[in-house]
Amino acid sequence: MTQPRRDSNWWGWGDPAVAPELDAEAKAVLSERIGELEAWPLARSLEDFELPVAEMLPSALSDAVGAENVFAGDEDRLRHASGCGYADLARMRMGSLDAAPDAVLMPADAGALRRVLEICKAEGIAVVPFGGGTSVVGGVEPLRGAHSRLISLDLAALREVTVDRRSLTARLGAGLRGPEAEAALGRQGLTLGHFPQSFEYATIGGFAATRSAGQASSGYGRFDALVASIRLLAPAGDLRTLETPHTAAGPALRELVVGSEGVLGVIPDVTVRVRPAPAVRRYEAWMAESFEVGAEIVRALAQGPGLPTIVRVSDEEETQGSLALSGPRGSAGRLFDGYLGLRKRRGGALLIVGFEGDEESVARSRALSVRALRSGGGAYLGQAAGRSWEHGRYQGPYLRDALIGMGAMVETLETSHTWSRLGELHDAVAAAIHASLERQGTPGLVFCHLSHAYADGASLYFTFISRARRGAELEQWAAVKGAACEAIVATGATITHHHAVGRDHAPYMKAEVGETGLELLRAVKERLDPSGIMNPRKLLG
Amino acid sequence: MTQPRRDSNWWGWGDPAVAPELDAEAKAVLSERIGELEAWPLARSLEDFELPVAEMLPSALSDAVGAENVFAGDEDRLRHASGCGYADLARMRMGSLDAAPDAVLMPADAGALRRVLEICKAEGIAVVPFGGGTSVVGGVEPLRGAHSRLISLDLAALREVTVDRRSLTARLGAGLRGPEAEAALGRQGLTLGHFPQSFEYATIGGFAATRSAGQASSGYGRFDALVASIRLLAPAGDLRTLETPHTAAGPALRELVVGSEGVLGVIPDVTVRVRPAPAVRRYEAWMAESFEVGAEIVRALAQGPGLPTIVRVSDEEETQGSLALSGPRGSAGRLFDGYLGLRKRRGGALLIVGFEGDEESVARSRALSVRALRSGGGAYLGQAAGRSWEHGRYQGPYLRDALIGMGAMVETLETSHTWSRLGELHDAVAAAIHASLERQGTPGLVFCHLSHAYADGASLYFTFISRARRGAELEQWAAVKGAACEAIVATGATITHHHAVGRDHAPYMKAEVGETGLELLRAVKERLDPSGIMNPRKLLG
Repeated sequence: MTQPRRDSNWWGWGDPAVAPELDAEAKAVLSERIGELEAWPLARSLEDFELPVAEMLPSALSDAVGAENVFAGDEDRLRHASGCGYADLARMRMGSLDAAPDAVLMPADAGALRRVLEICKAEGIAVVPFGGGTSVVGGVEPLRGAHSRLISLDLAALREVTVDRRSLTARLGAGLRGPEAEAALGRQGLTLGHFPQSFEYATIGGFAATRSAGQASSGYGRFDALVASIRLLAPAGDLRTLETPHTAAGPALRELVVGSEGVLGVIPDVTVRVRPAPAVRRYEAWMAESFEVGAEIVRALAQGPGLPTIVRVSDEEETQGSLALSGPRGSAGRLFDGYLGLRKRRGGALLIVGFEGDEESVARSRALSVRALRSGGGAYLGQAAGRSWEHGRYQGPYLRDALIGMGAMVETLETSHTWSRLGELHDAVAAAIHASLERQGTPGLVFCHLSHAYADGASLYFTFISRARRGAELEQWAAVKGAACEAIVATGATITHHHAVGRDHAPYMKAEVGETGLELLRAVKERLDPSGIMNPRKLLG
Repeated sequence: MTQPRRDSNWWGWGDPAVAPELDAEAKAVLSERIGELEAWPLARSLEDFELPVAEMLPSALSDAVGAENVFAGDEDRLRHASGCGYADLARMRMGSLDAAPDAVLMPADAGALRRVLEICKAEGIAVVPFGGGTSVVGGVEPLRGAHSRLISLDLAALREVTVDRRSLTARLGAGLRGPEAEAALGRQGLTLGHFPQSFEYATIGGFAATRSAGQASSGYGRFDALVASIRLLAPAGDLRTLETPHTAAGPALRELVVGSEGVLGVIPDVTVRVRPAPAVRRYEAWMAESFEVGAEIVRALAQGPGLPTIVRVSDEEETQGSLALSGPRGSAGRLFDGYLGLRKRRGGALLIVGFEGDEESVARSRALSVRALRSGGGAYLGQAAGRSWEHGRYQGPYLRDALIGMGAMVETLETSHTWSRLGELHDAVAAAIHASLERQGTPGLVFCHLSHAYADGASLYFTFISRARRGAELEQWAAVKGAACEAIVATGATITHHHAVGRDHAPYMKAEVGETGLELLRAVKERLDPSGIMNPRKLLG
């Protein structure tokens, strides 16, 4: 790799060759539900985009990484200036940014990375670590804090893979994208099993820094559970946890680095637990009488021995909405075709269950699941709908861009709670979003699905879609997002199950961890990053 | 509970009614292997024990907890002056202590606990939190650090149990002993599944503070994995993590509290994940050709779908040694009778496997295990030997006291490493202990078993037995323990898998977490405990 990646849309998600479009029927349903939309085209081309003028950076930085690894052109600065949340996408569409890094540096190895940190520490230059740039919470926004200069530290060159086949662990460079890591492991018959919706563009370092969870995390475990050991290069020193399966030697420092979101230092590589690649993958769809009933089925599965690798239950509104919209067709194909057969049903909650493993394990896990599904009154919809889910599993962000281009506001957010309070959480957040949208004069759709199941609870993933308020897009978004966050906090749930904190959730960290918890995290930051150069204003505000 | 517990031997482990004694045959084998032993009786009775004079404490402390909850008598001070490591036991036997708490305080609730912390912070009084007092690494030794006064904070009154049946979680008071917690859960058909050897006397708070692992942790998960949320009362403030199944909101503060060993504050209660009590428990014994082969069998099990609830492989020396000694008889019964049949075999490594769960899960897990055991050449020894292990699972400390009374030095230590380096670790530590014992002129037995299995590695648990060097017991112990620790550190393994750090392992924390890691932990301590009153000199030295 000799330069930062430029293979995705600069104004939105993913592969420029994938440009889904809603068909006429879906468009009709949509305008019936949220009103007539007015298209929102890009205000400017990449060439004309308005970027702030870059500050001069010391030449020592160029010496530290090699001049060929410093990128100060507009396109690279632009591509490192934001993530993929609605606010980011809206600003891109508006054609002008308040903030961009002064340059993008791409260290070739951990030594160069360490040299960059030393210079930035000495010179007081803010550093934003950059993996895939897929944050939906403002995690890579170039906020300078108390510093006048800022670099984006692109980790894309750190892509080593070292496998310990005997211990089933692999040290993976932070810059590896999901598919690159899986391909390297796949060549040895292994898998990491971490498949978040951002899988195709997000990186190993990002998974660790944001405490990511994937679609198959009910089976493989969340990313934090896959981390065997980790390394952090911080302004004040290097930290490396031992590569042992467990230790009782005090508090787990690994768990301070995982989820540190670039505010403590840079994660150059992660040693993860890997597994034999599954011989069998089977996805199927079921329909439960209601979301409540579907959630109860999943609770039974999660509290018993046969939890599937993937479990997901859409609430009634999401079930109806996905069927009605039926997914994008266009070049990405009829992604949700398998759902079409469901249109005949009214009400109910769609369940997707997936089984991965060897033939015997899958057979057993499926048998246990089918028992629970049937005893919960579930109706089997077949593998075709399950395969549709699989084919569309990374397509959500493309569809979102299509909707935004049509004039919609689309945002997602997620939380989790114990089984005892999950229903209360679902209702409170959905009601808060609906009410806020109504107050904005843009009533909309609020979809929710249960996306990760644990013995003690589950996560809820919300999507809301309404007309964008032209000229007040960011205010509208902030109001609805804020209403949802307040409802989450009031229910005692977590402000984020797997999207992380970044810029957007930082105001809620006090509710999340309390004043003492915040003090503690600040103490850690002050010790590791005394001059506060690492990812200012994120996580801790 | 109106006073601190006094139901165990003051000079050693457990129930005074259990007084195992080795039979003549075992004694003969022992003296053949480690030389003639000279009995080591207690130097003094409880009444004549020499304790340091107590410092005066402010009356505000008595007001804070109520005068009836302050205990300044010799017996309570003595019982709170040490744990159950060899050094502790040796000093008790010598009849004199250098240090004891000035008083034992037993707060009735978290409010009283908070008041005690406020006074101690203001007055500069050291605080040693006390659960079961079963630490084998000096975790409750009353070290005053920079302070002239010290109290032992006995948490035995904090024993509330609140179960959330729907979410399968339970908030458990820190002072509950293992059997008390299991009994309360058992009344609702639930289990925590945490059964360390110290189970009968150790407490919930201690399990959390020391990052404990139990004999069934391969199946139920280590204690840290069972913690859903936790609370810490620190001199600088209170910390409580949310009761949600997972959060991506930054570093996991829960993991800073778990393993904090009393140096950051006091854990008043822990919310843990519980499960339905198993309908079936089946323990059985197998024999593998060698420890190496046995470990390979366990690796196959741990990396596949059917890992038993309990797996344990003794190395050749432990297998031979346990057979030869054949366990204590006396009032505790013929604990290891089931092993007797094995005496006919020479060499080989004893495996204990245990299955717990519903009938179907146990049947399946056992079928998978039997397949792996057979394909590794294992020979089935039956359930009788497995039941012997079960009956003796908490008896080790009694046997140890018997051996110490006979004049032996007996100590245990544990570590863990990846499968790739487990053999190297085993050989290095065993060799270091043997060599150190030889240098002391007291050649001995060094037993080891693999006690907890993970996909990426396992823990090793060592026991060494030799003649005690009369008059130089502590020096002898320190030399051997030091040699073992150096070998562990040199192999890149962890200094402790589940015994924690306490006083004994603190000098190795730099090797464990590095200079930056230590700095980080110190920063956390300084923020939560600015005057350094919490458990001085432990964990961080």
